[in-house]
Order: sequence, then C-alpha cells, then structure tokens
Amino acid sequence: MRAVVIREPGGPEVLTVAERPSPELFPGAIRVAVRYAGVNRADLLQRAGLYPAPEGVVPDIPGLEYAGAVAACGPGATRFAVGDRVYGIVAGGAYAEEIVVHEREAAPIPRSLGDLDAAAVPEAFVTAYDALVVRGRLAPGEKLLVHAVGSGVGTAAAQIGRALGCFVVGTSRTADKLERARTLGLDAPVLAEDGHFAERVRAATGGAGVDVVLELVGGSYLAESVAAAASRARIVVVGLTGGARSDLDLRTVLQKRLEIIGTVLRGRPIEEKIELARLLWRNLGPWLERGTVRPVVDRVFGLAEAAAAHAFVAANESFGKVVLRLGD
Amino acid sequence: MRAVVIREPGGPEVLTVAERPSPELFPGAIRVAVRYAGVNRADLLQRAGLYPAPEGVVPDIPGLEYAGAVAACGPGATRFAVGDRVYGIVAGGAYAEEIVVHEREAAPIPRSLGDLDAAAVPEAFVTAYDALVVRGRLAPGEKLLVHAVGSGVGTAAAQIGRALGCFVVGTSRTADKLERARTLGLDAPVLAEDGHFAERVRAATGGAGVDVVLELVGGSYLAESVAAAASRARIVVVGLTGGARSDLDLRTVLQKRLEIIGTVLRGRPIEEKIELARLLWRNLGPWLERGTVRPVVDRVFGLAEAAAAHAFVAANESFGKVVLRLGD
Repeated sequence: MRAVVIREPGGPEVLTVAERPSPELFPGAIRVAVRYAGVNRADLLQRAGLYPAPEGVVPDIPGLEYAGAVAACGPGATRFAVGDRVYGIVAGGAYAEEIVVHEREAAPIPRSLGDLDAAAVPEAFVTAYDALVVRGRLAPGEKLLVHAVGSGVGTAAAQIGRALGCFVVGTSRTADKLERARTLGLDAPVLAEDGHFAERVRAATGGAGVDVVLELVGGSYLAESVAAAASRARIVVVGLTGGARSDLDLRTVLQKRLEIIGTVLRGRPIEEKIELARLLWRNLGPWLERGTVRPVVDRVFGLAEAAAAHAFVAANESFGKVVLRLGD
Repeated sequence: MRAVVIREPGGPEVLTVAERPSPELFPGAIRVAVRYAGVNRADLLQRAGLYPAPEGVVPDIPGLEYAGAVAACGPGATRFAVGDRVYGIVAGGAYAEEIVVHEREAAPIPRSLGDLDAAAVPEAFVTAYDALVVRGRLAPGEKLLVHAVGSGVGTAAAQIGRALGCFVVGTSRTADKLERARTLGLDAPVLAEDGHFAERVRAATGGAGVDVVLELVGGSYLAESVAAAASRARIVVVGLTGGARSDLDLRTVLQKRLEIIGTVLRGRPIEEKIELARLLWRNLGPWLERGTVRPVVDRVFGLAEAAAAHAFVAANESFGKVVLRLGD
C-alpha cells in the first residue's frame, strides 16, 4: 500500500509518499481501504517531532481519522461485511491506503454522508461531543462559548450546541470566519483579535456569562474564559494553540465554583476508544443522518499533496476541515 | 440574646459580646438555641473585612455552623419538635445564642454525638464530603491526597477517605500533625515544609499518583498537586490559604485529562443548602452514629473568649476544630 510518511522531523516538505506493507489483521480486527483521511493540527505537531505517536502505533505515518470501506475481516470479526463503509478515530496511521482497527473502534458511515464528508467527522465531532456533552455536561438551554469557531472542532461544537437548543457564542480572530459560522447556528459572534473577549461574551449573554466553554486556545485565553464563565460553569480544555502556561485566578474558580477539565482523545486505552466509536455511531449518527449537524470541508488534497495540506492548515486560513484523498 | 459581633473590621480584638434582638421566625423556619458554634478560617477573613456575609445575612455576627436545640417552630415547620437537637451550616450569624434557619437546612444530631462534638462536624465534614464524593467522585479503592491534613476539613477528609476504602496520603507542614493524623487512618504522611510534595506523593503511591486531591492551600501547591495526580484525577479546590494566583501547566492538565474543580459552600442558594443538610443527615449521619468517622475538637473557648479563639486559629497550631461555647 501507499502511505504518506514522515521522512524525518521537520516542515511540511518532510512528508513523502512511500510504499509500505499492509498492516497485519488480528482477531476482532478489520482492514479498511481508506478513501479519505482528515488532517488535524496534531498531525503537524507529530510531523515536527513534537507529538510522537503512542507506543504500539506506527510512528511515521500521521493521520488520526479515516473514512473508507471494509476490505477484509480478521478472525472473529463479525460486525461488518466486506464493502461496508466505516469511519473512525485512530492514534495514527490514517494517511495510508489501508489501516487495521478493532471492529468495535469503527462506526458505520450514515447513508446520507459521502466518504469525503465522512472523513471530516470523527475527530471534530467526537472531540466536540465528548468535551461538551460527556465531560462538560452541556444541557439544553445552557449558554455555550466556542473558541476558534471556524476550526474543525469549532464548527462541530457550534452545531452540537445549536442541536441541543443552547445559546451559542463563538470567538474567532477573523471577522470572515465569524460571518461564515453564522450559517452553522452561531447566535453571537465575538471578534477576539486582541485575545480579549470576556466582556463581550458577558454582554452577549445579558451579563450572565456562559455555562460551558470549549477552550481550544489555552494560554492567556483561559483567564478570559474564567472571567466569561457563569456560576458553576465547566471549561473544557481540548487545545493549546495559544500556549500551555496559564496564570489562573483560583479565587474566581472557587467563588464561581468552576470546573476546568482537560481532555485529549489520543492515547486512550481501547475500551475508551470503543466508547468514542459508540458516540460516533449512537449519538452523532442520527444527527448526521438527518442533517441536524454536518461536517464542514474547506479543501481536499491528493495523496501526493500532503505537504501542501499541512502548509494550508498551518496558515490558519481554513474554515472547517482539510481532508486528504487516499483512494482513487 | 447575646452574640459575638464584629465592632469594625480588624484584628481579633474587634470581636465583642453584645445584646441583640432574637432573629425573627418565618414560615417553615425553626429557632435554635445554639450551644456551640465551630470557628472557621472564613470567620477570621470576615472579621478582617475580607469576606463579607452574602446579602440577606446578618453582616456583623460571624459563625458558619452551629449545634443546639430547637427552641421554637415557625408556621408550617413540622419536621422537628421543641427540644430536638439539631446542627447545620449557615451563611453567618452562628456566634449567637439564637439562630433562625429553614427547618430543611437543619439536620438531627446523631445520638452518639455530644453537642460540642456536633458543632465540629458540619463545615468540616460537609465540605470534605461534598468536595471528595459529590464533586470529586471519589470511589472505593482510589488514592486520595489531603492537604493540611491536620485542619478541620483535613481530618474529616482523611477519615472519609478511609471509610470509603481509599489509600489516604496527607500533607502537613508540621511533623507532629502528621503523627496525630495517623490515628485517623492516614496511610502515608508527607511532610511538605518547603511546599514540595509531588515526588514523595508519587513514591507513596508506587509511582501511580493520586486520583483525587483535596486542595486546601492553592497558590503554588496547585502545580505540585497537578504533578502528583494520576491520569483522570480530580483536584477539588476548597481553600486558598497559600494564595489565589497559580501558574498552571495546561499541557499536563490535558495529557492527564485532569479536572480542577473549584467549590465553596457559603452563599449557595437555599435548595443547595438543603442538599448539604441532606448529606449531613443521610450520608454522614450513619457514619457518625457508628463512629466510622468522628469530629476532632482541639479546643473550646467561651462566648467572651472569641478573640482568643480567633488568635488560636490564626496561629495555625490547632489539630482539628476550634469551637465556641454559647450556651451555659
């Protein structure tokens, strides 16, 4: 099979197409012919040598999500038949024409979703759903703040908030992205070009503040998120593009009785990965089927254009997801 | 009735005994003849003008917990009879011979508990139980880290951890307090005289780290608590004697998928205060009745000695609770 491999840690140019042996099937596993793989910021970090794959995962093929069709079933794997369309999250290796996963880590692709759109779903929607609903306990009618609302996770989170009947406030550093996010159900766009947004978020919520924050930026944003939070709010930290160090005012955390919740999907043990696949299938599947939420694909790159895809994501100009085409 | 009042914001000497009118009964309320009131660090802050009473609460009489007997029942109050022994948490006003509370905010004192011991229970045990079990979801067999294990809340938390079958690690800046805490079921004492403890806590747990931290210190302790935490740990922040600002490494918070949970009992709305009284009655009552957990009283002061009681708490020499005697 062909795969995009990291020749050595470095810039986008270290990504090369190479021939690799197909990964081995094992009991309970399926081999998937990958048609599309989503490109994630974490892939860029891995390429630069800053985010190595967990133990037991192919170290030099990036790719955390895939959509494709079952090509073969291992011993005891009975959940899918050859040809079934499946998608899911993996800890690496999805920039390849074939990938092997346990059948319970894969989910069926809803009929209404093409393979390209499907590849834009798993990381963005499972990250957002797990963060907002499972960890953040977002409830109907609550007020939600989504940072980087033009990102893959941001566009998913805004739609999940709308689907639950929440009031959705979104921040972006770009006015154009905020405008586009309105079509996804954003109730209140807040421009955060200078990194300050707490006052405008409070104003947008009638002074009350927000009940759940999807914190994708970290760093100095966290203090502003704390200031924008309502009493008993949950701040779920899933990304740190703004830096890892944060000066926190614990007095406000106590007085507002806030929860700051860190989370990451990668590197979870198999039982939790299966739980994530179940979210994708049982909770998000029906919404995707009905069109209540929909993936946002900005651009598609071919197998030989992985370097360009990484450069495009790094430029921070994209709205929604960037996808790599692996099949014909 | 007589009460200890704050003449003006200041040191212990501003506390004076004064004659005040009895608080008014209202529908559903009971009047309690207070026999003992626990002294809390928050009372010292309130006295200094740094922690004003919430709106609707007597501003110049401190006191957040009481034990006594029902002296009168308001219209529609049917839960207790005159003479019943009750105790509970209030938002202020407990340094007084009489206090009026809604009957559902009070809990019956277990028969095995004298009035003096009872007054040492509500704040310490409800704070610890709410923080560890309700907010922190402490489960049997987990590893628990209790800071300031010689404090009122610390001694309660260590016992609750032991009662749940947890492995209890405790820190103190004083070797003597650690030695005394052993009798309460502390499995691993860790001296934290220099504010560093993470390495020793990890060593005490076989390298695994702890699942729940009761953070009573805040400030620079938080970073050490994050370092001492196991994957998916909950750090519940209930006190900030070490300062309110904390430099947090969010990368570790994400990678370990930690939760940092701020909480405070005071100023909660009535439905939540009733929930706390229910914890005291339904969850802690049977443990107290059987002696599974027991309050630790260090010293009792008379009504006229409130200033000395505050000075004693401020000196940080006490082990367990300091109590004020109000009845004869």
